[in-house]
Amino acid sequence: MSQILNLLRDRGVDAVTDPDILAAHSRDQTPLAEAGRPLALVRASSTAEVSTVLRSAHEAGTPVVTQGARTSLCGGATATDGCLLLNLSRMNRILSLDPVNRLAVCEPGVVNADISRAAEPHGLRYAPDPGSWQESTIGGNIATAAGGMCCVKYGVTAEYVRALEVALADGRVMRCGTETVKGVAGYDLVRLFTGSEGTLGVITQATVRLSPVPAQRLTLAAVFPSIAAAGDAVAAIMSSGLQPSLMELIDQVHLRAIEDMRPSGLPTDAAALLLIGADSDPDAELARAEELCAAAGASEVYRATDAAEADALLESRRMALPAIERKGGILVDDIAVPRSRLAEALAGVEEVAARHDVVIGVVAHAGDGNLHPNIVVGDDRIERGRAAFDEILDLALSLGGTVTGEHGVGVLKREWMEREVDEANLDVQKAIKKALDPKGILNPGKVLA
Amino acid sequence: MSQILNLLRDRGVDAVTDPDILAAHSRDQTPLAEAGRPLALVRASSTAEVSTVLRSAHEAGTPVVTQGARTSLCGGATATDGCLLLNLSRMNRILSLDPVNRLAVCEPGVVNADISRAAEPHGLRYAPDPGSWQESTIGGNIATAAGGMCCVKYGVTAEYVRALEVALADGRVMRCGTETVKGVAGYDLVRLFTGSEGTLGVITQATVRLSPVPAQRLTLAAVFPSIAAAGDAVAAIMSSGLQPSLMELIDQVHLRAIEDMRPSGLPTDAAALLLIGADSDPDAELARAEELCAAAGASEVYRATDAAEADALLESRRMALPAIERKGGILVDDIAVPRSRLAEALAGVEEVAARHDVVIGVVAHAGDGNLHPNIVVGDDRIERGRAAFDEILDLALSLGGTVTGEHGVGVLKREWMEREVDEANLDVQKAIKKALDPKGILNPGKVLA
Repeated sequence: MSQILNLLRDRGVDAVTDPDILAAHSRDQTPLAEAGRPLALVRASSTAEVSTVLRSAHEAGTPVVTQGARTSLCGGATATDGCLLLNLSRMNRILSLDPVNRLAVCEPGVVNADISRAAEPHGLRYAPDPGSWQESTIGGNIATAAGGMCCVKYGVTAEYVRALEVALADGRVMRCGTETVKGVAGYDLVRLFTGSEGTLGVITQATVRLSPVPAQRLTLAAVFPSIAAAGDAVAAIMSSGLQPSLMELIDQVHLRAIEDMRPSGLPTDAAALLLIGADSDPDAELARAEELCAAAGASEVYRATDAAEADALLESRRMALPAIERKGGILVDDIAVPRSRLAEALAGVEEVAARHDVVIGVVAHAGDGNLHPNIVVGDDRIERGRAAFDEILDLALSLGGTVTGEHGVGVLKREWMEREVDEANLDVQKAIKKALDPKGILNPGKVLA
Repeated sequence: MSQILNLLRDRGVDAVTDPDILAAHSRDQTPLAEAGRPLALVRASSTAEVSTVLRSAHEAGTPVVTQGARTSLCGGATATDGCLLLNLSRMNRILSLDPVNRLAVCEPGVVNADISRAAEPHGLRYAPDPGSWQESTIGGNIATAAGGMCCVKYGVTAEYVRALEVALADGRVMRCGTETVKGVAGYDLVRLFTGSEGTLGVITQATVRLSPVPAQRLTLAAVFPSIAAAGDAVAAIMSSGLQPSLMELIDQVHLRAIEDMRPSGLPTDAAALLLIGADSDPDAELARAEELCAAAGASEVYRATDAAEADALLESRRMALPAIERKGGILVDDIAVPRSRLAEALAGVEEVAARHDVVIGVVAHAGDGNLHPNIVVGDDRIERGRAAFDEILDLALSLGGTVTGEHGVGVLKREWMEREVDEANLDVQKAIKKALDPKGILNPGKVLA
């Protein structure tokens, strides 16, 4: 038996080695990503247990892959050969909820949506809403610096993390951040661990910021005869001074896939549908947005008349990924470009699809310039799909953008991150990794080679 | 002649060694902080020159203290013995201003207020407004993660930095961050350098986010017969759902000092004055705030009737520090506590003042729970002033707060930062410092011992 399993047994940590269970936990939701063969799975139930696992792994030199709900789309939570899978889903308690200071203290396995459910009686919510919010955990959201639909008005996960408890590579446990609104005592370790994808430490507790539930929210749907017209509408709205609470673009490929999966009368002949939310003075805001959509060439605009109808529209948007996955294997891109270059990015993706003769559907957090070109490769177009995938990343960089707006680097974008940043930046990242994880046991091969 | 001066001369960098000039540059605005004797001063005019200076200092093992406007209040920019002072005030160009993506690219020596002046024709501004905004530079603002009055609604400096160019300890130049709204490719180096107080690298260029100038802004002044009543008003307003654009408390000590310096009819008999700004729907917001102030016991409430009058009130607030400095030597504290504990912090400071028989004036960014207890020590009460200073820091920690809300650690709070964070956190900070500045030449003795 291996050293690590002996250490864990001696220290009272249950490690599962059943091959079927290990196989079931070795992958995340990244399509077409390869996973290694894990050695064992530990379902930790406390910070102390996480600490023991890391201390043991550090002694034995065993790789540790931390997992939450495994909803990563970039291979961030896939197993590597011989690794220990450290699953934190059992650490799912909200430890405290402070409506006065608007803070929630959570274990890492708390599901995103559960925080808002707990805060709702106080008129509060946890704003960041990645597509996976009903499944994904706050620990994973923070580890990946997750995005979502409300970012366009309310910002990303990183802006909602006040303090963290982190187990370091050698098992020592530290805290960083404060419960105060402002605080500058020392380096910003909260933000360093946020988005570090489990490669610098394991988040064992998080203090996150809550914010008021908007009193009212409404959604408008605008139908466009071309992607370019939808792009023009986005540009017009974002430069008008309006602050939409969401601004989502769904193209025809996705409209049809969603309608195939769950018919709800979406306009499947349209080139694109734009969903625009408003929650400050929604009637006035959407009236203005409607004018701008019409001026940009929308063929039809309709408003959800109540919150239930608005939610149904968003539900359609949230189904975009599962719906297109049913069309066969897909490759999920996640580029972001400066807002002013959204139209060029959309046109560029169309051009890449045509040249490689693959179907590429696009959904976009359009107000942020964050696009998900989903490349349908099935079983027989994987090679040309990969070529298209790479060219879209190239396109993003050529437009002054990034290869990942919100999904992270994981294994999928590692070489591309190396192309995005300069050599000195990469050296600084490697120096930090080396300083905090000298044996390289934390999620090896993710983010950095 | 020393090695560093030879290297600089050989590489075409002008180094000033005139003792008077060096003495004039060896201190920042930190009262009562001791400064060392610098070896030379370089006024850099380009990234290339900064790079050359660092490469040379790295070879020679010479400490480098980077300076902007030297408005630090924690000794962050004070000289250390034998150091090279690297002044970046000459790098003061705004390199580009992009109203569509709402970004400004600045050299580090650009004065904070100049960014807003340049953006104004586009209806935009650079929101963060530290007290020193008419003098302090964007490089220094970012290096110290500066705060200000608008943070209560608009957030701190760190939330406005998109991308940085940084010269590393060995002179290599790197970029980090993106021009996109979202981006998660690699570790968040932007936030690591932000607030690192010149100890990890030298910021040579910054891309900052602009935001719309509010259409309207108004200010209300409420007079309180006790500090406690003012604290109650703050609590009531912050939990009412109102989002004031500023919320400043000025106590009697400061009211009198300001009125002495520039008479403008401030209520010098009041225990405290609360300034409350609003810029969304200001009439309605301030009407509600007025009610809440009256309910908390305000003896008088008056509203500025136009922007000029509102600006005059803010000008009074901005004079608090220079006005109290005229009363003799002062020690400037900068604690932050959870908003719910503001009243306890205010009462605690009063108690400390009474027990040590020193005058302590308080101004506070009250909506953020960020207090500046300014301890008047003159020439003869320095010892008891220092004791009071320390007890106030202790008070902040006992209330779950931090020893520095916005001024930074510098030399003044180093030991206190070590008390605020745990041992593992401190070790992580030291490991990062060691990884990025192995020879320890960058602003040595600041932040970390």
